[in-house]
Amino acid sequence: MTSVAAQHLPFDLDDPYRSLSLNTATTKRWTLAEAVDGAARAGLGAIGLWRDRVDEIGADTAAKIVRDAGLRVSSLCRGGFLTQPDDRQTALDDNRRAIDDAATLGTQELVMVVGGMPDRKLAAARARVDERLAQLAPYAAERGIRLALEPLHPMFCADRAVISTLAQALTMAQPYPAETVGVVVDTFHIWWDPALEAQIAEAGAAGRISSYQVCDWLNPMTADPLLSRGMMGDGVIDFTTIGRWVRAAGYRGDVEVEIFNADIWAGDGREVIETMKQRYRDLVLPALVG
Amino acid sequence: MTSVAAQHLPFDLDDPYRSLSLNTATTKRWTLAEAVDGAARAGLGAIGLWRDRVDEIGADTAAKIVRDAGLRVSSLCRGGFLTQPDDRQTALDDNRRAIDDAATLGTQELVMVVGGMPDRKLAAARARVDERLAQLAPYAAERGIRLALEPLHPMFCADRAVISTLAQALTMAQPYPAETVGVVVDTFHIWWDPALEAQIAEAGAAGRISSYQVCDWLNPMTADPLLSRGMMGDGVIDFTTIGRWVRAAGYRGDVEVEIFNADIWAGDGREVIETMKQRYRDLVLPALVG
Repeated sequence: MTSVAAQHLPFDLDDPYRSLSLNTATTKRWTLAEAVDGAARAGLGAIGLWRDRVDEIGADTAAKIVRDAGLRVSSLCRGGFLTQPDDRQTALDDNRRAIDDAATLGTQELVMVVGGMPDRKLAAARARVDERLAQLAPYAAERGIRLALEPLHPMFCADRAVISTLAQALTMAQPYPAETVGVVVDTFHIWWDPALEAQIAEAGAAGRISSYQVCDWLNPMTADPLLSRGMMGDGVIDFTTIGRWVRAAGYRGDVEVEIFNADIWAGDGREVIETMKQRYRDLVLPALVG
Repeated sequence: MTSVAAQHLPFDLDDPYRSLSLNTATTKRWTLAEAVDGAARAGLGAIGLWRDRVDEIGADTAAKIVRDAGLRVSSLCRGGFLTQPDDRQTALDDNRRAIDDAATLGTQELVMVVGGMPDRKLAAARARVDERLAQLAPYAAERGIRLALEPLHPMFCADRAVISTLAQALTMAQPYPAETVGVVVDTFHIWWDPALEAQIAEAGAAGRISSYQVCDWLNPMTADPLLSRGMMGDGVIDFTTIGRWVRAAGYRGDVEVEIFNADIWAGDGREVIETMKQRYRDLVLPALVG
């Protein structure tokens, strides 16, 4: 089969799963080959890859597996770790490897989880992200890869990512061409933002929406906030409203489902995908169909 | 002794605890009389009261206890619960009682925790806050009480408060005079906000900062996010930077310490206050002294 990477088809209710992408974090126990097989058998159009599963077999082999299955790679996750004061070179080297891997895998989008706070100086940590983004952007641009800045929920500001809102990600992206630095719209992280509609519109107008990722916010939260994500429909997020904003912003790319959830991880991967398809069709897709 | 409510003294390094206020939630096991006694013996200038401890003895008795101890009441916590579609009258009645109690207690500031989402319709829940604020504001204004809108951390948007940023609180406050609707600057809830400096400046310029509340963000978080607050210095918040912004915004009121933390609750109240004083003097006060 030929590569279908970067072919973004219009959303279509008659072919609802062409734009649906399984992120390998959702079926965490599966190897890359198993996840690709599961996604392809389920009729999905794409897969989002985490580097741990890519590294197990190497990017070349991973790319061949995906290509042979006829899937797109909607994104590679993740670059980042840009906030530490001391290991600048290590971080830059690792990100360049991630950029190379993204190119090998045939995806344009490298999701960037930029890192938390090494100390109490939040502004300084954020400034380091700006600096290191400037050091990475030329390398990414030469290889046709977009650094997709992911705002993480503010509860992860200290330990995982000092980018906390879509507005902030857009400000950080602004110095660069839209094809070099983008932003991730992940419902779990930004659904609460009172200014979200305007931010999604701005991201779309700038051509910077790298990925639309969906999962739900469970209420009450789980004891580990990292695992408090749920299948669409199991929490409080209104995918119709946010989906309309994403649609109105012009996004026509894949929709990735990335769920960190101990119960889902313990379940059967094929059943998880079937539930995901049903929820996507019922709750997410209608708002995205023009 | 005469009431010293609403006398806001300048911050003073030589009399460092005149503007320090013990919120009764910090010494959760203490009755109101015990907390007042503890605060007064420790030389604090004020106390922040939760309604549960006021209700146990009634507002008149509570007011007398505080007055006799020579303390100010920096705020009453809390009104709110404005987001439910069905119990509008109950909520309004309860808030009017809270306004009356605030007036009896001699504080101007009634902290409003507006409530979470009864369903998936976030915008509708926020609109109900606007509507019910309009219904409460005249009653508050007549009694000289300010409704102090508290943005809660976005991780509480679903279950506790649909006001998630200071910017949003200011927008909600905007239709009302500054003496009728204000905002709470609580470090735990808003420290992560990339736009915080401008928002604090705006709140100050509008004369709307009802309260500056300090406690730290623990990293890693505790299993119950509600209890993930820590004593200043035990987490990641930079009180110097935020304190300078609060100072520059013109705030000269009391500084409340409100910590929900199981370990602190289990400790001896007098020791908690001594630690609080030391951390306040070392980490919080210097930035507030002009």
